[in-house]
Amino acid sequence: MFESAELGHSISKAQYEKEVPILREELLEAQLDLRQCGKFQVIVLIGGVDGAGKSETVKILNEWMDPRYIETNAMSASSEEELAHPAMWRFWRALPPRGKIGIFFGSWYTEPIINRVNRRIKVPDFDQAMEQIIHFENMLCDEGALILKFWLHLSKEAQKNRLKTLEKDPDTRWRVTEAEWEHFKLYDKFRKVSSRALTLTSTAEAPWIIVEGTDPRFRYMTIGRNILSALKKRLEGGGHRPVSQAPPALPPIDNKFLLKSLDFSQSMSKKAYEKELDKYQRKLNLIVRNRKFKKLSVILVFEGFDAAGKGGAIRRIAGALDPRTYRIIPIAAPTEEEKAQPYLWRFWRHIPKKGDFTIFDRSWYGRVLVERVEGYCSEADWMRAYREINDFEEQLIRNGSALIKFWLSITKEEQLKRFKEREKTSFKHFKITEEDWRNRKNWDKYEIACGDMIDRTSMELSPWTIIEANDKYFARIKILKQVCSRIEEVF
Amino acid sequence: MFESAELGHSISKAQYEKEVPILREELLEAQLDLRQCGKFQVIVLIGGVDGAGKSETVKILNEWMDPRYIETNAMSASSEEELAHPAMWRFWRALPPRGKIGIFFGSWYTEPIINRVNRRIKVPDFDQAMEQIIHFENMLCDEGALILKFWLHLSKEAQKNRLKTLEKDPDTRWRVTEAEWEHFKLYDKFRKVSSRALTLTSTAEAPWIIVEGTDPRFRYMTIGRNILSALKKRLEGGGHRPVSQAPPALPPIDNKFLLKSLDFSQSMSKKAYEKELDKYQRKLNLIVRNRKFKKLSVILVFEGFDAAGKGGAIRRIAGALDPRTYRIIPIAAPTEEEKAQPYLWRFWRHIPKKGDFTIFDRSWYGRVLVERVEGYCSEADWMRAYREINDFEEQLIRNGSALIKFWLSITKEEQLKRFKEREKTSFKHFKITEEDWRNRKNWDKYEIACGDMIDRTSMELSPWTIIEANDKYFARIKILKQVCSRIEEVF
Repeated sequence: MFESAELGHSISKAQYEKEVPILREELLEAQLDLRQCGKFQVIVLIGGVDGAGKSETVKILNEWMDPRYIETNAMSASSEEELAHPAMWRFWRALPPRGKIGIFFGSWYTEPIINRVNRRIKVPDFDQAMEQIIHFENMLCDEGALILKFWLHLSKEAQKNRLKTLEKDPDTRWRVTEAEWEHFKLYDKFRKVSSRALTLTSTAEAPWIIVEGTDPRFRYMTIGRNILSALKKRLEGGGHRPVSQAPPALPPIDNKFLLKSLDFSQSMSKKAYEKELDKYQRKLNLIVRNRKFKKLSVILVFEGFDAAGKGGAIRRIAGALDPRTYRIIPIAAPTEEEKAQPYLWRFWRHIPKKGDFTIFDRSWYGRVLVERVEGYCSEADWMRAYREINDFEEQLIRNGSALIKFWLSITKEEQLKRFKEREKTSFKHFKITEEDWRNRKNWDKYEIACGDMIDRTSMELSPWTIIEANDKYFARIKILKQVCSRIEEVF
Repeated sequence: MFESAELGHSISKAQYEKEVPILREELLEAQLDLRQCGKFQVIVLIGGVDGAGKSETVKILNEWMDPRYIETNAMSASSEEELAHPAMWRFWRALPPRGKIGIFFGSWYTEPIINRVNRRIKVPDFDQAMEQIIHFENMLCDEGALILKFWLHLSKEAQKNRLKTLEKDPDTRWRVTEAEWEHFKLYDKFRKVSSRALTLTSTAEAPWIIVEGTDPRFRYMTIGRNILSALKKRLEGGGHRPVSQAPPALPPIDNKFLLKSLDFSQSMSKKAYEKELDKYQRKLNLIVRNRKFKKLSVILVFEGFDAAGKGGAIRRIAGALDPRTYRIIPIAAPTEEEKAQPYLWRFWRHIPKKGDFTIFDRSWYGRVLVERVEGYCSEADWMRAYREINDFEEQLIRNGSALIKFWLSITKEEQLKRFKEREKTSFKHFKITEEDWRNRKNWDKYEIACGDMIDRTSMELSPWTIIEANDKYFARIKILKQVCSRIEEVF
């Protein structure tokens, strides 16, 4: 969930000072258009970890726009009057009317998340609370509201540093109370619970936009630009409720993508590789022959750039297994029969029963990768797919599957090198097609799509493992190790 | 939920024999169009109580249409292979491709309902299972599928009679096993659980259509016509996924409406009335002064035809209470301020806190009554309102409200009499407006809308009470009694 928000995003002072005046002007203009249109209201939620700059952000938004048409609601603990009413009453009271922007600093998410972190409610009750929130937000969207949900994130280290900095400054010291340090102790729990909340409630109608909170300039500009872009898009359509719902979040304005920040220098010597390969293949073989394995199924998913070495990695895993015990499912374009069904149907066909070991060479993630990038499905279709995929994978996991997902990443230069090599080597020649060259042209789009995919579909029990695959030896061993350890965890 | 499906619906043999050939021909034609269009599949679920004719219905549908393009799936207990896969796997396998009709006799609802009836799962797990089903069905709809869900209902008496009749006939005896009689013993539980299932999963995308199962002719024709109408409507739009989703169910083909089958002869003498009025007003007064009442709030909702006596009944309740302890909220057209908000906002404003007693003279049900009938909102808007209202009322009840809902019904003749009387009596004159006469012209539409409303929003903890109000004395006492007994139940 938070992978892309721990990359150390930042904006230079120069860029900020150049771009903010333009952004402010455009925001003011859009706000005026919103008032004149009067067909919908904008509901902005600012949530996130303590110390990530929520209150400063609210303050900046009020400075940047016309505060007369913004209603800011700081929702802290409920008053006695509020407690005597149904829980949602105080939020209904605070809804902005059409034509206005309502900023909620603390929201309907706060209480369920805090209650779950403190173990005051159980997982099913928490999930139920999230479903109620989805109903509520869907209803608001159906009634025309534009909902923008921002989650300000800090890594554990960054949160600690920030709290300390705030404490040192006499002007801000008052803001760091014991409650903040208590929260900090619960960082890991809070991260886990809020990750689940965000995953469950990132609907096509109102997806979460996760913003790294470390650098104030980056934070303000990201939020400001996302508000502006969503508002303009809606106003362009005359303010009517769009069929395809919310627009996706803008790509990071500092151009720092998850896939760009990998350490591709990691490598392994041939000798070390051969030793490790032998070790982990043996290990995997033993695990699969364990009696416990009968009650389990393993599903491996391989995605990655063309020529990143998926095939080679898959062969090294297969090499550890009895050919009767595994199946490799290569996913290409759907057949006519498959096209006549909902897109997940062709994967359900191959879902293993208990005791099976299935390797998907490409997968259902095609929906949010190639289909998104090439425009084979509409924006609304791939936006809803994240949630459908999460639902799908939850069913697999609940049935006792170990689901292990790999993204094999290489650099653009490395890909070119491999393409050229393959063209030279005749027996690999068939592997380079027109399509590969076309995909390569869309490299940047794939980087964005892949970042969104990893952020939105890394659930606690089905996390993505990103493989730095410029060095094949390193990549294959990292994959084998991960397969072994994940299966052992599920046992 | 099942109010309208216990009226003894039936179709004469003559009408059936006249209309079925036409219906069959049209169904065949629509089926052919579906194949040629090939843009969507039709998924027909046939659920309901044992003995309501599910299997005969499936047989008839196969006779009426071209069975080569129908896939019938009888989903009984899972096979060993199915148990080794995730629960939904068997349904995915059975999905019809685009261009075809898939009939599911037993479906993804069967297991959660049976498990809940047998107490194998708890309420939160059951609710969660229903949410999962909603996700699944929404996904199918988003993928283009047309889902038609029919629930065949029998009253307890009718189910018993039918099981006995089947048992007597040697040709059908085999179908009544001990399992059926065991189920029958659980009738009340089954009714309660399935009522909750149907309420939770009647979404705007795939609402349930409840069909009384007693008369086979009525049952077949109702289902056949609903399939035909939904199919034709979708094909008219070129087969594309509609924005406003599923069409509402057709009104009962025998024209037997809930409100038409009330017993309006019930009455009460003035003397008896005065005695009872005194008795129940005293009782209500005592209840409200009880200390326990501090933790409770009471919400009364009055809906009904114009001149049905809502005002008079409300005054008799108010007469029992200390004026400082209650509020009457008359609901008229929304103000400008209210129009700028989601439609439920203006009711949330008046939601009482604990210890309050609030009487709504008309209510949020205007959305599915006047707004539906007059076309003030779109079909999609009032279709989704049932669920939104159920969500809303669940929040009130969870907060400790006793929610008591009355529909005051009079006959069309009685209304005319009262209108004319009011026009004569000068001090009541102001009460008859142009609007009243216009509403009267839409009488039949209100009857349909009201029947749908009662069927779809009578939850276990917020049932509707229908008041036969041709006799005012009888009506007022029935209301007072009900108010007292519901509050006592919630205590």
